[in-house]
Amino acid sequence: MKIESVKIFVSCPDRNFVTIKITSDEGVYGLGDATLNGRELAVATYIEEYCIPSLIGRDPFDTEDIWQYFYKGVYWRRGAVNMAAIGAIDIALWDLKAKALKVPLYQLLGGKSRQQVLTYCHAQGKTLPETMDAIRQKAELGYQAIRVQSGVPGMKSIYGIAKSSKGYEPAIKGNVPAEECWDTNKYLNFAPKLFAAVRKDFGEDLHFLHDSHHRLSPNEAARLAKELEPFHLFWMEDAVRGELQEAYRHIRKNSTTPLAIGEVFNTIYDCQTFITEQLVDYLRMSVPHTGGFTHMKKIAALAETYLVNMAPHGPSDISPIGIAANLHFSISINNFGIMEYMGHSDLTNEVFPHGYVLKEGSLYLDETPGLGVEYNEKLAEKYAYEKAFLPVNRKEDGTMFDW
Amino acid sequence: MKIESVKIFVSCPDRNFVTIKITSDEGVYGLGDATLNGRELAVATYIEEYCIPSLIGRDPFDTEDIWQYFYKGVYWRRGAVNMAAIGAIDIALWDLKAKALKVPLYQLLGGKSRQQVLTYCHAQGKTLPETMDAIRQKAELGYQAIRVQSGVPGMKSIYGIAKSSKGYEPAIKGNVPAEECWDTNKYLNFAPKLFAAVRKDFGEDLHFLHDSHHRLSPNEAARLAKELEPFHLFWMEDAVRGELQEAYRHIRKNSTTPLAIGEVFNTIYDCQTFITEQLVDYLRMSVPHTGGFTHMKKIAALAETYLVNMAPHGPSDISPIGIAANLHFSISINNFGIMEYMGHSDLTNEVFPHGYVLKEGSLYLDETPGLGVEYNEKLAEKYAYEKAFLPVNRKEDGTMFDW
Amino acid sequence: MKIESVKIFVSCPDRNFVTIKITSDEGVYGLGDATLNGRELAVATYIEEYCIPSLIGRDPFDTEDIWQYFYKGVYWRRGAVNMAAIGAIDIALWDLKAKALKVPLYQLLGGKSRQQVLTYCHAQGKTLPETMDAIRQKAELGYQAIRVQSGVPGMKSIYGIAKSSKGYEPAIKGNVPAEECWDTNKYLNFAPKLFAAVRKDFGEDLHFLHDSHHRLSPNEAARLAKELEPFHLFWMEDAVRGELQEAYRHIRKNSTTPLAIGEVFNTIYDCQTFITEQLVDYLRMSVPHTGGFTHMKKIAALAETYLVNMAPHGPSDISPIGIAANLHFSISINNFGIMEYMGHSDLTNEVFPHGYVLKEGSLYLDETPGLGVEYNEKLAEKYAYEKAFLPVNRKEDGTMFDW
Amino acid sequence: MKIESVKIFVSCPDRNFVTIKITSDEGVYGLGDATLNGRELAVATYIEEYCIPSLIGRDPFDTEDIWQYFYKGVYWRRGAVNMAAIGAIDIALWDLKAKALKVPLYQLLGGKSRQQVLTYCHAQGKTLPETMDAIRQKAELGYQAIRVQSGVPGMKSIYGIAKSSKGYEPAIKGNVPAEECWDTNKYLNFAPKLFAAVRKDFGEDLHFLHDSHHRLSPNEAARLAKELEPFHLFWMEDAVRGELQEAYRHIRKNSTTPLAIGEVFNTIYDCQTFITEQLVDYLRMSVPHTGGFTHMKKIAALAETYLVNMAPHGPSDISPIGIAANLHFSISINNFGIMEYMGHSDLTNEVFPHGYVLKEGSLYLDETPGLGVEYNEKLAEKYAYEKAFLPVNRKEDGTMFDW
Repeated sequence: MKIESVKIFVSCPDRNFVTIKITSDEGVYGLGDATLNGRELAVATYIEEYCIPSLIGRDPFDTEDIWQYFYKGVYWRRGAVNMAAIGAIDIALWDLKAKALKVPLYQLLGGKSRQQVLTYCHAQGKTLPETMDAIRQKAELGYQAIRVQSGVPGMKSIYGIAKSSKGYEPAIKGNVPAEECWDTNKYLNFAPKLFAAVRKDFGEDLHFLHDSHHRLSPNEAARLAKELEPFHLFWMEDAVRGELQEAYRHIRKNSTTPLAIGEVFNTIYDCQTFITEQLVDYLRMSVPHTGGFTHMKKIAALAETYLVNMAPHGPSDISPIGIAANLHFSISINNFGIMEYMGHSDLTNEVFPHGYVLKEGSLYLDETPGLGVEYNEKLAEKYAYEKAFLPVNRKEDGTMFDW
Repeated sequence: MKIESVKIFVSCPDRNFVTIKITSDEGVYGLGDATLNGRELAVATYIEEYCIPSLIGRDPFDTEDIWQYFYKGVYWRRGAVNMAAIGAIDIALWDLKAKALKVPLYQLLGGKSRQQVLTYCHAQGKTLPETMDAIRQKAELGYQAIRVQSGVPGMKSIYGIAKSSKGYEPAIKGNVPAEECWDTNKYLNFAPKLFAAVRKDFGEDLHFLHDSHHRLSPNEAARLAKELEPFHLFWMEDAVRGELQEAYRHIRKNSTTPLAIGEVFNTIYDCQTFITEQLVDYLRMSVPHTGGFTHMKKIAALAETYLVNMAPHGPSDISPIGIAANLHFSISINNFGIMEYMGHSDLTNEVFPHGYVLKEGSLYLDETPGLGVEYNEKLAEKYAYEKAFLPVNRKEDGTMFDW
Repeated sequence: MKIESVKIFVSCPDRNFVTIKITSDEGVYGLGDATLNGRELAVATYIEEYCIPSLIGRDPFDTEDIWQYFYKGVYWRRGAVNMAAIGAIDIALWDLKAKALKVPLYQLLGGKSRQQVLTYCHAQGKTLPETMDAIRQKAELGYQAIRVQSGVPGMKSIYGIAKSSKGYEPAIKGNVPAEECWDTNKYLNFAPKLFAAVRKDFGEDLHFLHDSHHRLSPNEAARLAKELEPFHLFWMEDAVRGELQEAYRHIRKNSTTPLAIGEVFNTIYDCQTFITEQLVDYLRMSVPHTGGFTHMKKIAALAETYLVNMAPHGPSDISPIGIAANLHFSISINNFGIMEYMGHSDLTNEVFPHGYVLKEGSLYLDETPGLGVEYNEKLAEKYAYEKAFLPVNRKEDGTMFDW
Repeated sequence: MKIESVKIFVSCPDRNFVTIKITSDEGVYGLGDATLNGRELAVATYIEEYCIPSLIGRDPFDTEDIWQYFYKGVYWRRGAVNMAAIGAIDIALWDLKAKALKVPLYQLLGGKSRQQVLTYCHAQGKTLPETMDAIRQKAELGYQAIRVQSGVPGMKSIYGIAKSSKGYEPAIKGNVPAEECWDTNKYLNFAPKLFAAVRKDFGEDLHFLHDSHHRLSPNEAARLAKELEPFHLFWMEDAVRGELQEAYRHIRKNSTTPLAIGEVFNTIYDCQTFITEQLVDYLRMSVPHTGGFTHMKKIAALAETYLVNMAPHGPSDISPIGIAANLHFSISINNFGIMEYMGHSDLTNEVFPHGYVLKEGSLYLDETPGLGVEYNEKLAEKYAYEKAFLPVNRKEDGTMFDW
């Protein structure tokens, strides 16, 4: 079999997605998710100009060789644009192979290690009462694990809190990123109160997660992790930005609150110290942003060796194709923890019809060969790309800060 | 002062270059080099779509804040595409500031630490005699430091060796990368003979450098470094690919051959272990690919503290603007080692008229305010972008390998 | 441009200051602060005898080369006398360069990273009620961050507590240092009570800082840091004297109270382990005592890489020139935390007229080229140097101890 | 007993010396050496203004308390100016105490551990033959240990080589330091040839030492140390500048050439990593520059624990008082290695009459109480201070470098 054509689609069915379609000379095709939130066209250009010509004529089953070709062959390795491109190609090739073999993709990854994939959802509110209501609604839907973010008294805007009632979507359409404002002190004082209230109302059985979104220093993170210990979080996420992996040593020495990181990572070298020193409990890398199944299976292997679990990132800017990739990955590995699932709008789901379904907080795959997701090209064409950005963030004194 | 317009130019005056021009409301402008060899349009798209709108209206003197804005603001940090974009913007802003203040750029970086910048050139041949001739020609031109690469008996193609007499240009025009073939064993057996012959003919005064181009394992590198010790290389470059920084510990324990790495690095986190554990002697990061002056000055500071010298990458795919950036950087820091300089074709030089000149193997800056390089937009327009790639590389058994 | 004259002024407008003035052959001049509290004339002699002759005739724009000349050229490197001399020269050269280029100095350091610089003030009292009153007064002035020191029951004198109502000035005029007396046990028992009371009265929004002034053992510091955790200090300062950097590992393993150190440090080698092992959260080195901008920018770069923030020392023995240097530094770097500001007497301010102003606990710079501080030589002449010392300290049993 | 007067003398009997004289109310006095080469008046001012008033009235036998008073009491600790002042005071107090007790000073340090103190002398020449001659002359004088420095072909000036026949004196009179020029490559190529020739001519019994004078990078030092291994140096000195103590790890892993460092160190914190990681074999700190006997005994204690030997610095800029201090120290400790002794001019010896004598390369102390050195104030007065500096050093490209 040979690759005959590769196409890139950029569309905006409520939000932007970049989709790759690889078709073989035998007419089998695979789909991949190349969306990089707020930098979509850079990835599209990267694939269009620099990857597609090299794909044509290759055997689509050679996933390892093709992965190495694009990873080593670029000379300028790593980075989100590069790895999202490789990830999309790798996902599409595995989808194609599974379709050609007429099996769900997970069968090629080692079969099922479990019947369904536990997810966590998001609950948030501008105030503590609103947040408690949101948790209650999610719990009533059967979720066993809920990420809780809350507006902080005295802070205008905060990560994770929707401005409208339409649900939270961090990317905002426009020509430049929105600027938010942040006060660590107010947040640190409030967060333990939030989870004291949450545990008081909801007892000890539900899993609660929390995201600090890379905004703490190692010591601030250690303080918060220590103060949250009594509330037994499922995890505290992205406590400190992750370029300096050893920065987590200090948090680890001072607390047993479980730690998670990884949604912005792209290669195994972004996390090998986190893993080998066991500085976190969960790695949150996603299949599409981390070079696809080929690379993620290796990361999962290293993590398993060091007793770390995988917990793929699953925001709305990962298309249903990417979500399905995370699902097939999650269902097949042994060291799976939990998977994030924000869901998508009806329109997004219409453009990406898929077989996976959510029941009581867990995702279930059907037996469709491949990923089990389609791409409605005709419908998608109606929704042209509209520039949108994740916000940037400043401290109250104007210092450019981590969003 | 406010930024009024930002333009991106992609042209191919013999080879591809991406150039950024930032102009203020007072009519002062700065130029930056955004060329990423073989991925040019990805960077151009990245800047065009995602950076320019955020630059308009900002104070161009706020280089630190703007750097942080694009580094932290992308959420998906690091990587060559991202950092080349930031680097081009940062260079252009410093060029603009120096022009506005009517001083050569190095004056804003701490003044001159030396009068000229020592460079090394490339000498290569398909055979040992050709290589010896090439060295002789370079030595006669007054070069004090020469990088020596030679064809290896039994190997068809090899990194660094020109196919034509026009001089070596690794990027080859076409729709897909060329594929080369590699045999580590033949190389390891030949390299010590090469340098034995070189030292025998040229004595001990000339500096010789050699590039293993990321193709050795840590232990192969240790073997070669050890066997090259008697020939006193100025450095052995890119012995092992650098994602796993600690991989160099083994080489370091076994040899005193000086080591250099960094031409594919983009941030301080790509090299902080190399520096703090002093695993290399020279860091070869370039100003345009590493986030510009703002970031490179910080890397140089870290390196100085740990007794490591800076030795910027200077191949032909860094435009005269990028070369000038490397020069102003190199002339201003104390811990400078040497700078690579491959030069450019006449046409490239015509499109980028510049004041720096090469004399006896050293580069000299003139006193023009800013970088001292112009961009001839009219002339450049005639030379449209032509896709070109660095080669990829396979081992003799077909294994996809490091180029 | 060439340096034509360099002058040293020693004067005592309420307290001693050493000021350097470097003038070029084009008539532009720069000012630097060479004050080393209690050792003023040693620095003045050092500059007068050993630095000025080497400065004459040099290009004042060569700040990096001149820095290296005095750092490496003395052979006997490091130490406060040496580094205060280099710091004063470096500040004056950057002031001169910025004046010559007609921009505020921060523009040469990367522009503004924020519009104003957050400061903390000092509140102290002989008794707990007096201390609470002092805090209240400062809070009413709009300060967001207040360093709290209090007399300890059973101890006669204590660091940081004024004897008169004129405000605290640690240096005392006379021929020999005053001797104070210290009881660690009384202090350790009292400090947690102090901050329990402070938080009870003032709530959780205000930032409180505390200075242990190098008087604790690592384990005593760990105990206190642990016991202060519930009161969420902004920082605990100078817990243990800093010559043995690794001494802070024990504190760090046992507490998440933020730590600060550095006001007596002079070079990057005094803190590189503090930074690379992230043993503190804030580095309190000041621009004048740490070799000036040239060296401090390098320290800030190292600290930024390791997620440590800069928080310059700003007592009354740093003249308005040194304060302005700290301000231009603080406003330009990204990893700024907070700056100490004790202010100066009216007479001091008259001798050093300056444009920076304090509003609601933050300092603002104006747009005057250079540092924005003048030195009134005529007025200063009237106030001759009067010897004054920081106190020394003994334990209750007479043991010579850390002040 | 009380201290009644303290005087500082600055004189230039062929070269500058700073001498302190502490006299008690019982008429006993002690002498100390406060010379800091090229910064003499800074130390003199420091003592005169800031130490003498605090000494008057104290019990001169309280050496430990007085040491702590000046070390801790300055607040700005460490540094050569500070520690040379403390060293001079401490030496004078011990001299006074020994005189009061009518015993040679070593008796108060633990008595004699040996009868004489092995020294090494300097042999140098502009060319290899001159150097060989110089060695021969020294060997004939009975020296068992000779430091060998030689002019390097192609380099104009080099550290350690006299320009005139009067013997080498690095400090040069004048208003600014001389500038030398350095080429590491030429030196590295030559040094092994030098010692091959030396061993060939002089056999294996003589001890040869060599000083790289802080001019090598860690890797260059490792190369040289490795290449010098066959010649069994007594030591290779000051291979790399010592601020970054861990820089010696790399040298140590690659060679068994013995290493020495320390002549520019002033406190135990300048060498505690060198000692505890056993990165060197000899510590070359001198009693006068390192805070006197009180501090040096503690350093020797730490070194003994880690099997490191003491080898005091003894150049001509340490006066006969300082040399005698080194001698009493060296004769009394167990972990003594060797002591440098350059000797002094006849005039210097006339101004500082002393009882120690050199015989066959070893120094012998007589039984005079105290240090056994006098200071001829009348004679000294005739020789007023003349400013002189150690040179500074630049690399051939103009880079300010380590001298």
